Amino acid sequence: MIINKVEDFLKKQLVLLLLLVSSNVCSQNVKVEMSSAQRSQIKRGYGMFIHFGINTFNEIEWSNGKLPASSYNPTNLDCDQWVKIAKEAGFRYVILVTKHHDGFCLWDSKFTDYDVAASPVKVDVVGEVAKACKKYGIKLGLYYSLWDRHEPSYKNNSDYVAYMKNQLTELMTNYGAICELWFDGAWDKKGYNWNLQQIYSDVKKLQPNCMITVNHSIGKPINRNVTQLPENYATGDPIRYFPIDFRIKDPNLVRWDDPKYYERDSTLYYLPFEHTICLSDRWNWFQKKNVLVPRPLDELEALFYWGTANDNILIINVPPDITGKIRTNEEHRILELADRLGIRGGKKKLPTGPINLAFKQPVVASTALEQHPATYANDFSLESFWAATDSMADIVMLFDSSVSFNYISIFENATLKDLGDNFSKLRVFSIKEYELQAFVGKNWDTFYKGDIIGACKIINLPKYIVTDKVRLKITQSNGKPSICHIGISKLTNAKK
Amino acid sequence: MIINKVEDFLKKQLVLLLLLVSSNVCSQNVKVEMSSAQRSQIKRGYGMFIHFGINTFNEIEWSNGKLPASSYNPTNLDCDQWVKIAKEAGFRYVILVTKHHDGFCLWDSKFTDYDVAASPVKVDVVGEVAKACKKYGIKLGLYYSLWDRHEPSYKNNSDYVAYMKNQLTELMTNYGAICELWFDGAWDKKGYNWNLQQIYSDVKKLQPNCMITVNHSIGKPINRNVTQLPENYATGDPIRYFPIDFRIKDPNLVRWDDPKYYERDSTLYYLPFEHTICLSDRWNWFQKKNVLVPRPLDELEALFYWGTANDNILIINVPPDITGKIRTNEEHRILELADRLGIRGGKKKLPTGPINLAFKQPVVASTALEQHPATYANDFSLESFWAATDSMADIVMLFDSSVSFNYISIFENATLKDLGDNFSKLRVFSIKEYELQAFVGKNWDTFYKGDIIGACKIINLPKYIVTDKVRLKITQSNGKPSICHIGISKLTNAKK
Repeated sequence: MIINKVEDFLKKQLVLLLLLVSSNVCSQNVKVEMSSAQRSQIKRGYGMFIHFGINTFNEIEWSNGKLPASSYNPTNLDCDQWVKIAKEAGFRYVILVTKHHDGFCLWDSKFTDYDVAASPVKVDVVGEVAKACKKYGIKLGLYYSLWDRHEPSYKNNSDYVAYMKNQLTELMTNYGAICELWFDGAWDKKGYNWNLQQIYSDVKKLQPNCMITVNHSIGKPINRNVTQLPENYATGDPIRYFPIDFRIKDPNLVRWDDPKYYERDSTLYYLPFEHTICLSDRWNWFQKKNVLVPRPLDELEALFYWGTANDNILIINVPPDITGKIRTNEEHRILELADRLGIRGGKKKLPTGPINLAFKQPVVASTALEQHPATYANDFSLESFWAATDSMADIVMLFDSSVSFNYISIFENATLKDLGDNFSKLRVFSIKEYELQAFVGKNWDTFYKGDIIGACKIINLPKYIVTDKVRLKITQSNGKPSICHIGISKLTNAKK
Repeated sequence: MIINKVEDFLKKQLVLLLLLVSSNVCSQNVKVEMSSAQRSQIKRGYGMFIHFGINTFNEIEWSNGKLPASSYNPTNLDCDQWVKIAKEAGFRYVILVTKHHDGFCLWDSKFTDYDVAASPVKVDVVGEVAKACKKYGIKLGLYYSLWDRHEPSYKNNSDYVAYMKNQLTELMTNYGAICELWFDGAWDKKGYNWNLQQIYSDVKKLQPNCMITVNHSIGKPINRNVTQLPENYATGDPIRYFPIDFRIKDPNLVRWDDPKYYERDSTLYYLPFEHTICLSDRWNWFQKKNVLVPRPLDELEALFYWGTANDNILIINVPPDITGKIRTNEEHRILELADRLGIRGGKKKLPTGPINLAFKQPVVASTALEQHPATYANDFSLESFWAATDSMADIVMLFDSSVSFNYISIFENATLKDLGDNFSKLRVFSIKEYELQAFVGKNWDTFYKGDIIGACKIINLPKYIVTDKVRLKITQSNGKPSICHIGISKLTNAKK
C-alpha cells in the first residue's frame, strides 16, 4: 500500500518534470489528465467544513491575532459529536480549520504559544477530530491559513516559510492520513513569497495522496476582459498558485459546464473545483451566539446537485457553537438534507441531479435591465441574473419542440442587507406571488401558483407537463423581480 | 343487496318510531347509535366538492337568480376529467352542487327553465358527473340549496316544498345511487317552512342509503353561553334541522374531541361532522378568471388529519374553471396532497394523523391578550388562538415528564384582508423568524430555526427530540404574533 503511494507520487513528480521540460519545446500542447488521487477526491465528493477557532468565542468572523488564547474556552467540547453527525449526514470527509487568519492553532504546536495548549481546555482539537474520523470511518482534510495575523515571523518571508514548514510537518505527521490540505489568505503577500513549490513538495513527501490547493486558485485570464469569477473560467486560464491539485474560489459557484484544464508554463492541468457553502442562510463561517436560520432545504438540495455535478465537489460549513458542540438546529438541517438525498448514514452513493432541459433555450422577458438580460435566467451560471424593470414581470422559455417535465427549481436573486458587522449580510427576497404556465393549445395553462420563492424553490409536480413554452409570471413583488436561474427537468423517479 | 338496503332503511325507521314513542316516557335516556350507513359514510371519509354553476361564469360567489342562463357557456366542458382527477387524488366520492342559492339547475329539470337546458351547452352536468363516477368507481353525492333566489314559487312555502319534492325526485331517480344529499341556505326561512321531515322521508324512500344533512345543523345550546361554533359543541346540544344523518357547519372546523351525540325530542342521535374546506387559499367556492394560490401543502396535510380524525369527514372544494375543466394548478396541488398522504389512485386506506402530545399541556406565554390566552395555542380547537401583545413573543409547553417527538405542526392565525368583492378575504401572516427550542440540561437548545410559518408549517425532524419543555420563540414579526395551534407528535415512520 505504502509502496503504491510512493510509486504514485514518484510517477507524478516524473510527469511534472517531463512536462516542465516539454513545455519549453511545444507550447499549449501538453495535457496532464485526471490522476487516480483526483479520481478518489471526486468520488468522495461531499465534505463537512468545520470552523471552530478563537473567532467562535468572540462573535467575529475575522480577527486580528490579538484575541487572548484564554478566550478559547468551550464548556462542553465534543469533537466526536461533530464527526458522528458528519458521518450520519452522509459526508465523506471533514475539513477542519486548523489555523485561520488570526493565527490561533487548534493543535498544540511546538512553534507558537497562540494555540489550544494555551487555552483553558488544553485539548488537541485536531487530534480529537482525527480520532473521531478513524472511529467513524471518514476521511480527514485540513485547512491552514497562509496569512497569519499573530505570528511574529510573518513579516520575514523566509522565516515564515520555515514556520509553516514546521507546523505543516506536525499536521502531516501526527494525525494519520490527510486527504486534503487547503491554503487560504494567499492574497496577503505576493504569490512567490509563500514558496508554495517547496511547501507542496514537502507535504507530498509526508502525505502523497493529500490533495492540495490554494484559495483563489485561478488567475486573471490573459486575453479576455471578464471578472475573475468561476462562472467565467475558460480552458487554459492561468493557474495562479502552483502547484495545486484542485481549484477553490470561495464562496463562488462554478458554471454548469465548468471547464477542467488550466494552464501553467504551457501545460494544461486537470483541476476539479471544490465548492464551499455555509449551512447558514448568511455568509458566516464561525458559529454565533444567536442561532442562525439555515439555508432552506430546497436551496441545499439544488446546491448539492449543482456543486457535485461535472466532477466537482461540495463542502458545507457546519460550525460547532461556543460550548463545543454542533447545535441541534444545524444537525437537523444537515440530516434533513441527507434524508432528501437518500445518503443518511453515508452508505449510499451520492445521487446525481436532474438535467436542466431549459439551459440556454431562447428566452424572452417582459422587461430587463440591459446588464441583466433574460438569458441570464437560464445560462450556465447560477450567479448571473435576469432583472426586470417593473414589479410585475414574466419570462418565457421557448423549446425547439415539446418537452416533458415534472421538476422545477427557481433561484431568486437576493438583495443583500448589511448587518453592520462588516461581514455577514442578510438575503432579502421580493417575490410574493407567481405562476408557472405552460402553453397548451392556444392558452397559457397555470400548472402551479405559489406565493414565495426565496433563495430557491423546488417544485415537484405530481404529473408531467408537456409543452414547448414555459412561462414564469410574477404577479406580486415587493420590488423588481430578479431571477438567478430556472431549471426545468424530468425526473423518472418521484421525489418528495 | 337491494333487499338488505331496504331492510336497513326499515329497521332505522322502526328505531326512529320506537324512539319517538319512548322519548315521551323517559327524557334524555335514549341514544341512537351509529348506523351501518353512517359507518360507510365515515369509511368513505374524503370527498371532492364541486361548484360549477352560473356563478363560475360571472366572477361571483353568490348571485341573485337574475344572471342569464345564456351566460352558462363552458367552451371545453369535461366532467369526465373532474371525476378522473378526483379518483386519482384519492377522493372516495364527489359532491356536486346541483343548484346553488341562485336557483340555477345543473340538470334539465322539468320544473324550471333556469337550468342547463336553457344554456348554450345544453349538457346535463349532473348526468355527466354521474356517468363519470360510475366509470371511475367512486360515489356520487349532491348538494341542493333550499334557499332559491330565482324560483317564483319560493315565496309560497307549500308550493316551494312541492317544487323541491319534484326536483329532488328527478335527482334521486335519474342518476343512480346517491351517497349524500346536502341542503344549504336553510337560514332564509324559519326551519319548519322547509318541511324537512317530509323531504327527508321522501328522499330515503328513493335512496335509502343516502346520507342527508342541512348546513348549520346544530342549534344554540340551551344552558351555555357560547357561540354556536363547532368548537363549542357539547353532547346533547340541540339538532336544529331534523331529521339529519350527519352535521355540517361550513366553513368551521370541529374541535379535536368533537362530541357525537346531539339531541332532538329528548333523544340523542349519533352525528358525524363533515368538514368543508376550499382548496383555494381564500374562501372561494366558484372558480375565478385569475388563477388562485391554493392552500399550502402543509396546511392541507394538517387539515386532512384534523378533518378526518375522530370519525369525521373532510371534503375539499376543487372547482372547474370557466372553460369547464379543473385547471392544472388545482389538479397538481390535490395530487401532491394525495402523494403526501399515500392515497394516490384511491387504492390505499386513508391514513390517520399523528397524536398531538401537547394537547392541553400547561402552557406559558411571554404576553397574551386577555381574550386570547396562551392556552388557546394547544387547546382542542384549531380556531381559537393565542395572541401576543408584543411583536417578539414566546410560548412554552410544559410536559409532566419527558416526551419524545419528531413532528411539529404550527398554525399561525391570519389577519384577513378584504378583497372588496364582499366575499373573499386574503389571509395575511406576520411571523418572519422563529425558533423551536427544547429545554435540555440547563439550556434552551434551538433544534429548529425557520423564517416563515404562514397558514401552517409542518416540521419533520430528522431525529427525535426528548425533553419536558418545548418553546416556540418568535424573534421577528411584522405584527403581533398569533398562533392557532401547535402540535407536537411522534411519528414512528419517517414522513417527508
